[in-house]
Amino acid sequence: MDLDFIQKLIKPAETKIVMLVMDGIGGLPRESDNFTELEAANTPNLDLLAKQSVCGLQQTVLTGITPGSGPGHLGIFGYNPIKYQVGRGVLAALGINFDLKPGDVAARGNFCTIDENDCILDRRAGRISTEKNKELCELLRSIKLPNVEVFIETVKEHRLLLVLRGNGLSGSLIDTDPQEIGKKPLKPQALSSDAVHTVELVSQFLDQTHNVLADYRPANMILLRGFSEKPDWLSMQEAFGLKCAAIAAYPMYRGLAKLIGMDILETGQTIKEEFDTLEKKWNDYDFFYLHIKKTDSYGEDGNFDKKVSIIEETDREIPRLLDLNPDVIIVTGDHSTPSLMKFHSWHPVPVLLYSKYCRPDNVDQFGERRCITGGLGPRFPAEDLIPLALANAKRLEKFGA
Amino acid sequence: MDLDFIQKLIKPAETKIVMLVMDGIGGLPRESDNFTELEAANTPNLDLLAKQSVCGLQQTVLTGITPGSGPGHLGIFGYNPIKYQVGRGVLAALGINFDLKPGDVAARGNFCTIDENDCILDRRAGRISTEKNKELCELLRSIKLPNVEVFIETVKEHRLLLVLRGNGLSGSLIDTDPQEIGKKPLKPQALSSDAVHTVELVSQFLDQTHNVLADYRPANMILLRGFSEKPDWLSMQEAFGLKCAAIAAYPMYRGLAKLIGMDILETGQTIKEEFDTLEKKWNDYDFFYLHIKKTDSYGEDGNFDKKVSIIEETDREIPRLLDLNPDVIIVTGDHSTPSLMKFHSWHPVPVLLYSKYCRPDNVDQFGERRCITGGLGPRFPAEDLIPLALANAKRLEKFGA
Repeated sequence: MDLDFIQKLIKPAETKIVMLVMDGIGGLPRESDNFTELEAANTPNLDLLAKQSVCGLQQTVLTGITPGSGPGHLGIFGYNPIKYQVGRGVLAALGINFDLKPGDVAARGNFCTIDENDCILDRRAGRISTEKNKELCELLRSIKLPNVEVFIETVKEHRLLLVLRGNGLSGSLIDTDPQEIGKKPLKPQALSSDAVHTVELVSQFLDQTHNVLADYRPANMILLRGFSEKPDWLSMQEAFGLKCAAIAAYPMYRGLAKLIGMDILETGQTIKEEFDTLEKKWNDYDFFYLHIKKTDSYGEDGNFDKKVSIIEETDREIPRLLDLNPDVIIVTGDHSTPSLMKFHSWHPVPVLLYSKYCRPDNVDQFGERRCITGGLGPRFPAEDLIPLALANAKRLEKFGA
Repeated sequence: MDLDFIQKLIKPAETKIVMLVMDGIGGLPRESDNFTELEAANTPNLDLLAKQSVCGLQQTVLTGITPGSGPGHLGIFGYNPIKYQVGRGVLAALGINFDLKPGDVAARGNFCTIDENDCILDRRAGRISTEKNKELCELLRSIKLPNVEVFIETVKEHRLLLVLRGNGLSGSLIDTDPQEIGKKPLKPQALSSDAVHTVELVSQFLDQTHNVLADYRPANMILLRGFSEKPDWLSMQEAFGLKCAAIAAYPMYRGLAKLIGMDILETGQTIKEEFDTLEKKWNDYDFFYLHIKKTDSYGEDGNFDKKVSIIEETDREIPRLLDLNPDVIIVTGDHSTPSLMKFHSWHPVPVLLYSKYCRPDNVDQFGERRCITGGLGPRFPAEDLIPLALANAKRLEKFGA
């Protein structure tokens, strides 16, 4: 749904919405008993909630498309992930909690090894240690460019982040990484005319990098990818009239939430601590995004049983959520991560939406196959979840007379 | 789904996809036992496959829209049939296996009868015999136009095909057939400025036709309709990265498949022979389209029992398909053709998609009503079938990081 459309219908209300995101929650059935992770998990509280909810399966991007974490989350936050694309440089910045400002241009970098003719010997410089990376980043911080601030940040091993801050910058540049050894790093080039100035700056930066790192081995150069600007989108407050807070233990998700204007709440690493934070800040916000990471992590590890146990651990916290008496509760994920595939997948994601005014269907258990016949159907577009939540929270005017 | 969007996500893989199309498979229940043709058919193999598949009902165009064979097939091949429209002249050329080249302009023609004032007496010239048609087409082949090749082909009875081949031609012309007797054939007119040259050529052609046929009765003139150019679309190889082959006994379907770049395999007229061809060419392609015509033919005849028997005959070949161990199998149709209606219809078409990674639902029989509660839902957009097949064949990259 267009943000412009929904924005015009927003009306104020004293209601609260909680979106509980179990990352990668959707799965595939294991052979032994034909149950998915969610179907196998003992989830009395989610099942009871499903009974009182409208249920279904949602798609964050499109049929058959496997969402990355960025698009997956933007989808459930109501931002069509094809229209609202985040560049990889920006995502890398979010991932290390770098505080991007409007107009910043970010790129992902690799330390690499080049020979005396500048040809690439190793695109990852033998995966140098994070410690070594920090040392080299400190050296690169000596590089100055005219009229822009330069930020160099260690990510992990051979990976780093470059951010330029100044006026008139653009992220429309090609990658300098040719993705092949034996070739020279590519010269920066503009993809649109407004990037000519940025190309000049990046070229100077790389020339100086070449000099600064000349005597080091194996990391004697860098490759840059995914140049992108911090996007200038409507915030959730602007689009939906919601004062929003994110409760997420991992930097990437905190960064994504920040990108659309959520406040980031300090919280602990455990699920219990995340619910503690929810209770503590309950009076301060209209919308809470609470992110459970480990359902995805164990899915990616192929650890079916551990994924089940995280679902069950989350289920045990549900009564605390209900005690807060939210007006609307959404439980879903940003994509599926079947333990069977050890990877994000395209499979639709179970979703329930509870409110006093939802129209419950016949789904009496929260699981992939039960949700097929739910009132939201088997392919609900994720971007419609927030509008539906707003409706249930009595935060939308009637359309037309 | 936009071909441009999916194209960017394609990655190579060694997987094989089979799309088995039972033309007009969808039906309506007969009075005696309330079963549709597919529900009445004894299909143990398709039912077993359905159990291991994700099922549903698909729409090739839009709700309530009855697809012709062209749009129906383009839909299941992943080409939105509203965006990708084939002109009727082009379809007529495909139907007689005429080898259209890029830039060709084709039109359907009727021999007709006109009086001494050039007014139409009979738009179909009394439905002359195909033999007579061939004779007259031979005469028309004497007509020459400056700098273009002219092809005249007999279709059947009073119907013929005109194709112009040369530079700078356009299909943006009105029909010359006024669709009414007592009127004169319309003069060729351009619908866009780039068709002015083609209008001049067609006018010359019709003037000469008038002379050539002047002494013949009842066919003393022709009417032209459906001027169109061979479309210049992405091939399935370009859009989806698939090396594609078509196994179809009827010219129209071979032509349609060729239009989007499939190789056309030599095959016999029976279902068994089509599966023979599949086995024989198994190693040479990534994607096979196997077309069963007679489900539609018997539907159009209103012959419920014969349609059932074709479905059962196809079902008996399914084990041979399974023995080839395809990574993805889709079974569906290009539209419904209920025997009760003796015509194509708008009703959604049963579909199953099998792969090791599909998420099976609760559908345990392949039929219209069972498929309603399948994981693909009761109105799955046909154009998303190929993207979903590509996902299941592990031929798509993740979208975003």
